[in-house]
Amino acid sequence: MIIITNDDGIYSIGIKTLYKAAVSVFGRSAVAVVAPSGPRSASGMSLTFHKPLRVEHVKTSSVTGYAVSGTPADCVYMARYELFKNRRIDLVLSGMNDGSNAGMEGIESSGTVSAVKFGAIVDIKGIAFSLETEKGGIDSATYENASKRVSSLLSAVKRQGFPKKVDILNVNLPASVRSDTPMKACSIEYTMFQKFVAPRTDPRGRKYYWLWSTRKDSKRFAKGSDCYELFVNKMITITPVSMSVLDQTQFDEVEALVAANGGSLS
Amino acid sequence: MIIITNDDGIYSIGIKTLYKAAVSVFGRSAVAVVAPSGPRSASGMSLTFHKPLRVEHVKTSSVTGYAVSGTPADCVYMARYELFKNRRIDLVLSGMNDGSNAGMEGIESSGTVSAVKFGAIVDIKGIAFSLETEKGGIDSATYENASKRVSSLLSAVKRQGFPKKVDILNVNLPASVRSDTPMKACSIEYTMFQKFVAPRTDPRGRKYYWLWSTRKDSKRFAKGSDCYELFVNKMITITPVSMSVLDQTQFDEVEALVAANGGSLS
Repeated sequence: MIIITNDDGIYSIGIKTLYKAAVSVFGRSAVAVVAPSGPRSASGMSLTFHKPLRVEHVKTSSVTGYAVSGTPADCVYMARYELFKNRRIDLVLSGMNDGSNAGMEGIESSGTVSAVKFGAIVDIKGIAFSLETEKGGIDSATYENASKRVSSLLSAVKRQGFPKKVDILNVNLPASVRSDTPMKACSIEYTMFQKFVAPRTDPRGRKYYWLWSTRKDSKRFAKGSDCYELFVNKMITITPVSMSVLDQTQFDEVEALVAANGGSLS
Repeated sequence: MIIITNDDGIYSIGIKTLYKAAVSVFGRSAVAVVAPSGPRSASGMSLTFHKPLRVEHVKTSSVTGYAVSGTPADCVYMARYELFKNRRIDLVLSGMNDGSNAGMEGIESSGTVSAVKFGAIVDIKGIAFSLETEKGGIDSATYENASKRVSSLLSAVKRQGFPKKVDILNVNLPASVRSDTPMKACSIEYTMFQKFVAPRTDPRGRKYYWLWSTRKDSKRFAKGSDCYELFVNKMITITPVSMSVLDQTQFDEVEALVAANGGSLS
């Protein structure tokens, strides 16, 4: 079976879009929604161990599923170890996120991608989907086009199988997505955002701070990276994300650091 | 300069231990503490964009620094882009966490490691430190021994430089740490925990759920992995964590998936 989750919550438009696409490919009985009860953007792979979770069965006009009071990773945890513990979960699909999750920090901090990363840790393959937003939001024709492209990718995965050596795939769709927008396998840009802090003063004279960021100038993105192909070439990007690959040269450096101290830094 | 943070909060014993070790090696004027105002365990690389942050200057008998109302990653963000935006930050040190953070899920979900991962994204090298706890907690002699071992590692890094090809190091110390416990460069175990959900019923008859987990049987850990060397051989483990390495064979598989559909899955 297939679990659908996201980080914008079970009432978001994006999850309806993804649910519709998944049902069209795999059939309604194979697909279950287990998603946060409200928005949990930028929650990373946060897990809720310090307080209990509530689960409610939710039925809207377009989605039937479980609303969990926790994070996206909590949802996959609950699906795997409680709600569907007696069924085999083949795939976690997360999204479609309202806003892109490209670049290393998109991948690391987004709840959308973290949900499928948690899936990978418990040995379930997964795909995260995110749709670029532009000012004024996403119109229904764009969601419709995005849904078609997601369906075609899911059909390909159903036909050919999930890439064997890949744990998870991170897919980003441009705001301009049409039914024939091409897709490209991409590397990961290091950082997509220029970061700022905005200090403010509250009515009582105490300081507070907003973290905020703007997308870097596209000319600064590496060609072939997810950010470049998404924002400059307006392609659908698909990026394999590695969970555990260590570059041997990195490992060697650390061994050298340890060995230089007789294997026992002291 | 060096930023110290953690996920147990600025009032934890672990951060005092790390602060003391860092000051002994780099001197007090080079070290600043910017840490969460309270515990933020398992917060992953969560960033706080949806509400503002508060920052308070804190001075205790053993730590002077800034308490931030956000996550560990928020603390590094605030240090880099506001509090110390006009100084060069050379290193982020995070911890010493109360409890080990070994294995892929320790690395992915822990706030301790996520703080240094966020540092890596904004181009600052970092080291996460976690100390295994046993039932009954950690006694002061163990903290003292841990502090000595952390000092010796920091001295080595100061002397030899941080490994050039490595973004971050994840260090775990066993509960049995002594001043001569050896250190070993390790790979990352996939999953350290066996996971469960405990359903309960509240006094009003409504269900709620606790996520919980126990450490897997040590015999199931791979030799050479952080979990094996930490829990079986009781060594200090030091693991390079890759932020962006993609295995070319994984990339090839995804390209094949895309190419099989004419480069445009439809």
